[in-house]
Amino acid sequence: MTDEEARGATSEGAAADEAAGGGAPARGLSRRGLLGLIGTGVGAGALGVGVGVGSDRALQAHAQGTSGAAARYPFAGRHQSGITTAAQDRLHFASFDMAAGTTRRDLVELLQDWSAAAARLAQGLDVSEAGATGGSPLAPPDDTGEATGLPAAGLTITIGFGPTLFTDATGTDRYGIASQRPAALVDLPHFSGDQLEEALTGGDLCVQACSDDPQVAVHAVRNLSRIAFGRASLRWSQLGFGRTSSTTRGQSTPRNLFGFKDGTANLRAEDGGAVEEGVWAAGSDGADWMDGGSYLVARKIRMTIETWDHASLAEQQTVVGRDKGEGAPLSGGSEFTAPDFAAVSADGSGPAIAVDSHVALAHPDQNGGATLLRRGYNFVDGNDSLGRLDAGLFFIAFQRDPRRQFVPIQTALARNDRMNEYLKHVGSGIFAVPPGASQGGWVGETLLG
Amino acid sequence: MTDEEARGATSEGAAADEAAGGGAPARGLSRRGLLGLIGTGVGAGALGVGVGVGSDRALQAHAQGTSGAAARYPFAGRHQSGITTAAQDRLHFASFDMAAGTTRRDLVELLQDWSAAAARLAQGLDVSEAGATGGSPLAPPDDTGEATGLPAAGLTITIGFGPTLFTDATGTDRYGIASQRPAALVDLPHFSGDQLEEALTGGDLCVQACSDDPQVAVHAVRNLSRIAFGRASLRWSQLGFGRTSSTTRGQSTPRNLFGFKDGTANLRAEDGGAVEEGVWAAGSDGADWMDGGSYLVARKIRMTIETWDHASLAEQQTVVGRDKGEGAPLSGGSEFTAPDFAAVSADGSGPAIAVDSHVALAHPDQNGGATLLRRGYNFVDGNDSLGRLDAGLFFIAFQRDPRRQFVPIQTALARNDRMNEYLKHVGSGIFAVPPGASQGGWVGETLLG
Repeated sequence: MTDEEARGATSEGAAADEAAGGGAPARGLSRRGLLGLIGTGVGAGALGVGVGVGSDRALQAHAQGTSGAAARYPFAGRHQSGITTAAQDRLHFASFDMAAGTTRRDLVELLQDWSAAAARLAQGLDVSEAGATGGSPLAPPDDTGEATGLPAAGLTITIGFGPTLFTDATGTDRYGIASQRPAALVDLPHFSGDQLEEALTGGDLCVQACSDDPQVAVHAVRNLSRIAFGRASLRWSQLGFGRTSSTTRGQSTPRNLFGFKDGTANLRAEDGGAVEEGVWAAGSDGADWMDGGSYLVARKIRMTIETWDHASLAEQQTVVGRDKGEGAPLSGGSEFTAPDFAAVSADGSGPAIAVDSHVALAHPDQNGGATLLRRGYNFVDGNDSLGRLDAGLFFIAFQRDPRRQFVPIQTALARNDRMNEYLKHVGSGIFAVPPGASQGGWVGETLLG
Repeated sequence: MTDEEARGATSEGAAADEAAGGGAPARGLSRRGLLGLIGTGVGAGALGVGVGVGSDRALQAHAQGTSGAAARYPFAGRHQSGITTAAQDRLHFASFDMAAGTTRRDLVELLQDWSAAAARLAQGLDVSEAGATGGSPLAPPDDTGEATGLPAAGLTITIGFGPTLFTDATGTDRYGIASQRPAALVDLPHFSGDQLEEALTGGDLCVQACSDDPQVAVHAVRNLSRIAFGRASLRWSQLGFGRTSSTTRGQSTPRNLFGFKDGTANLRAEDGGAVEEGVWAAGSDGADWMDGGSYLVARKIRMTIETWDHASLAEQQTVVGRDKGEGAPLSGGSEFTAPDFAAVSADGSGPAIAVDSHVALAHPDQNGGATLLRRGYNFVDGNDSLGRLDAGLFFIAFQRDPRRQFVPIQTALARNDRMNEYLKHVGSGIFAVPPGASQGGWVGETLLG
């Protein structure tokens, strides 16, 4: 069964396709073919309408929030899923390194194989038609089977390319793509206070698997890792047990492990113009193949929660710049009231929101309007030998250009944020996330096809 | 607000109480007081009826399976919750060591504090009335706040006592309870193939927190750990992302990371006589204070999933003794058909179910009828430096007497199970789980009260 047949097999699947990424090419028409049509007046008009309708329906689907087991998002589309998709509850993130001696052809085939598998997984199917039990009993099953019988549970698989895929540590252009590295795919600078561990940092490729069922997300990463065998291997990986961001207006604001609501001022899928401006790369940005893509920055941020838990409520609220119960800015109002950085504190001793509070330093108003679409997750990885939980935030943000967004924001935070006393950045990655695959196509086809 | 007031505050809470542990003492009457009443004919009769009704309602509640956010289980009752309770989706398990120099009074107060907090958490409340934001702004909040606003999501907190609580590694009876160590609380023997890591093994106390929302389970362990500050500290801890066992007939059988249905032949809450016989300790077993308690064995079992994934479907099924798709025994039938260990394979070459298959060695018929109430969880803890997922099963089983149950079963498995090629036991713990707290009482009151 091909990818398209699998999806066409149910009307739900087809509906999900239509509601998809806003402007996904019509089935059976290749991306290149569709771009050809755009050259004519009729084609362009038709596409325009299609995009509008698709976007509205996508927003409706997204705004319903995590609809749990029933949610299915198509893998193909103008944009990859898992970016403006309503943030699912659970995460398994994986960074991969290409194996020594692999060729451009190996990379292309890996991306094709991943894409074919991901398209099936997103529909709640096994990685292949033979799946976990349908092949020869004398061969290992195609699918490892732990998600057999489980619904897709909103699974999205988002694939990205790290800087080292373009030029490796020795300066070698292994895959003939060094000249096409986007300028926006910077090597992240060293930020003040960084304590990055090599084993938790970097990678040639990344896979972000999100689902409302962790077994489904784990199954996806495990099987993509298996498909990569001999071509790429896991460099580092991270489970996140609870989302810390809302990416649609319909979602309630979750709390991070500091006990505060997080991401109140996050970009949302409904913020059409701001999403175009702040999330999606355009061909005119300098790399044609990234048109409709985005840039993912991941940071593994340990929280020294024992220290935090010993801080007074007043100190915690001053650090964050919001109150703990409601999430309202300390300048007053309720959760979604805009912070007033000019407001004076009740006792007149200074600003209501400290200038070195997290909300002041991270807010778009303080960063020339720079925004991020955050999509992070809480993690707990056991405890250290002193009995302290190894816990924190696995920060993920999507953006159009890290040079204008993550890098300046994090530079300001790293220098001055009062919260730094309670944080330690131990892992880091940056990845160019190409546009979505065409129907039956693959992620990376605009670069390597 | 006291524990009882908190629960009495809503009719839902009261209903949950009634449906509770089957035979929970009436509110306002201490356990000791109730035991006094039982000495009279009228009291005993009244209690008898109450137990019957309570049990039926508890079973109805349990059989509905994981009802998600709405489920609330009372902390007090004849038995601790989290044993026959319908297995929730997520786990945070923690092992604690008492601090050096702590006294019996410290231990009692810790158990009282844990019990008071646990009773509130189980009702979806913060750990204290002041909670995350209601105290003085100049003091650290009582509650860390990340579960504020979240429902209980079926949270159960189950507390156990390890062998070292009775006699520590130096042979010291720190808390004056060495003579009351139950004979059933054995030091687990070394099993063939064990590769236990000290940092993942043992502990004076354990807390099993299960919930359908991982944030709620993590919040419970974090806050109990915080409450223990200066008296006990985390020794090791484990998150489990997906249940691998059903503990009621209403639950579907989940799959482990080998991709097989697990726990088909598990004891279930509805198996009245078998549960009495196989799960609950009785005073007549030798330790009066454990009447209504149980024994918990935990094993962290790494699966070498890359090796498993290279095994053929036929090999995998032979190892397990069941087919992968349906979970039927290889002797035929469907998932819940009893395995026929006398059946001959289709080609007549031997038994249909290999004598060294997992199902053959673990089955009650092969272990003198010995059963376990399993309550394990899948885990993934990242990956190793070779890119292999650090994944497996966090096995938990409850039983009346490990000497007759876990130890002989695991001895047989460790020697002969074909599955051993794909397993590595790296962590281990055994804990006496006392009976449930009386209303307003505490876990351990029958031993230390």
